[in-house]
Amino acid sequence: MGQSAFDEAIRAIPTGSVDTYDIHLPRSWTVHGGPVNGGVTLAAAANALSVRLGETHGHPDPLCVSAFYLTAAEAGPGQVVTEVIRASRSLSTGQARVVQIDERGAEVERLRATATFVDLTTTHAEVLTVARPPYLPPREECFSPESMGGDSPLVVSEVMSRYDMLIDPTTAGWFGGQPSGLGQIRTWFRMRDGGEPTPLMLLQVVDALPPVAYDLGLTGWVPTLELTVHVRAKPAPGWLRLNMASVNLAGGFVEEDAEIWDSSDRLVAQARQLAKVPFTPAPPPGYGWVV
Amino acid sequence: MGQSAFDEAIRAIPTGSVDTYDIHLPRSWTVHGGPVNGGVTLAAAANALSVRLGETHGHPDPLCVSAFYLTAAEAGPGQVVTEVIRASRSLSTGQARVVQIDERGAEVERLRATATFVDLTTTHAEVLTVARPPYLPPREECFSPESMGGDSPLVVSEVMSRYDMLIDPTTAGWFGGQPSGLGQIRTWFRMRDGGEPTPLMLLQVVDALPPVAYDLGLTGWVPTLELTVHVRAKPAPGWLRLNMASVNLAGGFVEEDAEIWDSSDRLVAQARQLAKVPFTPAPPPGYGWVV
Repeated sequence: MGQSAFDEAIRAIPTGSVDTYDIHLPRSWTVHGGPVNGGVTLAAAANALSVRLGETHGHPDPLCVSAFYLTAAEAGPGQVVTEVIRASRSLSTGQARVVQIDERGAEVERLRATATFVDLTTTHAEVLTVARPPYLPPREECFSPESMGGDSPLVVSEVMSRYDMLIDPTTAGWFGGQPSGLGQIRTWFRMRDGGEPTPLMLLQVVDALPPVAYDLGLTGWVPTLELTVHVRAKPAPGWLRLNMASVNLAGGFVEEDAEIWDSSDRLVAQARQLAKVPFTPAPPPGYGWVV
Repeated sequence: MGQSAFDEAIRAIPTGSVDTYDIHLPRSWTVHGGPVNGGVTLAAAANALSVRLGETHGHPDPLCVSAFYLTAAEAGPGQVVTEVIRASRSLSTGQARVVQIDERGAEVERLRATATFVDLTTTHAEVLTVARPPYLPPREECFSPESMGGDSPLVVSEVMSRYDMLIDPTTAGWFGGQPSGLGQIRTWFRMRDGGEPTPLMLLQVVDALPPVAYDLGLTGWVPTLELTVHVRAKPAPGWLRLNMASVNLAGGFVEEDAEIWDSSDRLVAQARQLAKVPFTPAPPPGYGWVV
């Protein structure tokens, strides 16, 4: 099986230093050549940790990852500087810093992630859960952003063309300027090149969609400040389902939650991010300013 | 106004080094002299960052904090080693490592936190939210753990005697060995010494209760692996309400969510942690093993 476009985008190349890996963030995962998708940058950082902790401690799979986004990563070369913080028999915790050289030749830190890795093939198989998969209409009844035509900047961006996204039409009103005000998006999701989901890919998928806060009436750039992802199981092959929710815009920030369900109806990832809202939006119908 | 017991527990004492602060984790915030409450250890780490980022950048308040718990902190002296990662006009991001000297004289890292700090008095006042406060019966109809008498190890622990906790009786069945299986705890909460809530205190309060997974049928030690807290506003004085939920025990880990609401009906903190379940519990009535 060949490498998927995603595997290639996050490739970690060993250097002469045991803790440092070269990466090359591709333009094909940006929005119009601007910032690289944050999920891809995080997955590249986590992949370097995966290589290091996999080789030295047998823990190649992310279990829990928290990343702070410091400056916007750009397409092009960069490095991931890793640190092993603590390792035990069952799990290892490390840190990964993504750095790039800016136009003045100075090293700039893009992202700092701390993460615990495990071997997901050896964790307990039992699941005790009250979580249930989101209801999604059949894919042929869902909304494809590309049906909007070439006018939407979302549709034609490089990173959006990596995916097949089929959105529950009851949560897609914001595409046409009619946010529901509920702060919800539910969608089918897969990589267009057929790359099957992996634990590292889930770190990207939780941040692949436009901000779910768009369904609260926001528009424009809503940069992620921090993102935490729990990978709860190796995903089964096939379509993923994403359940996104955003409830509280306050203090100039908004939280966004994501659940990923795999084709075997298993909750394979839970994520939450805090994002900055650089302006005061008008509340959509049905909403009110509380304070 | 004198210092509260909480303020004293998390005090950060400057040392000769600009990045290092001495702390002293008190026995009165442990369980029977064992591990120090994780929330207090985190708040002590964050307090050192608060001092440093407050003095140098005018950002004394935690906005978003992620901590990885590496080894159990012990009552006694320790140090917080801080790093300023990036600062802008509106927010600063730093790292804090809590270290202690073990019985062999070696430095051991207890906790590593990365955090973004702001000045919560200058953030946007507007709130746009679909979140609603949890329903809690009047306090006189709620369940006090101390009504269980001295037999419960929870009641007599040092850290539990710091608080007044009045639990919604419909979510307190696990105290008597009858978990609801829903994974929910709702409770009134305040510090017993009258210390009013502060942004730093919220970092402790989200981790103050027994694990909400007890309402899923778990018992015993459920150590936190990682905890992320978003502080969304300065809390108003008075009683807090906590809304705790846990939905997915899988792969030997369980996630726990916490919301804190203040006396003005504002959602002042959202938190999520991933905790390790060191054994396979029996599912409570109404539950099933999914896989």
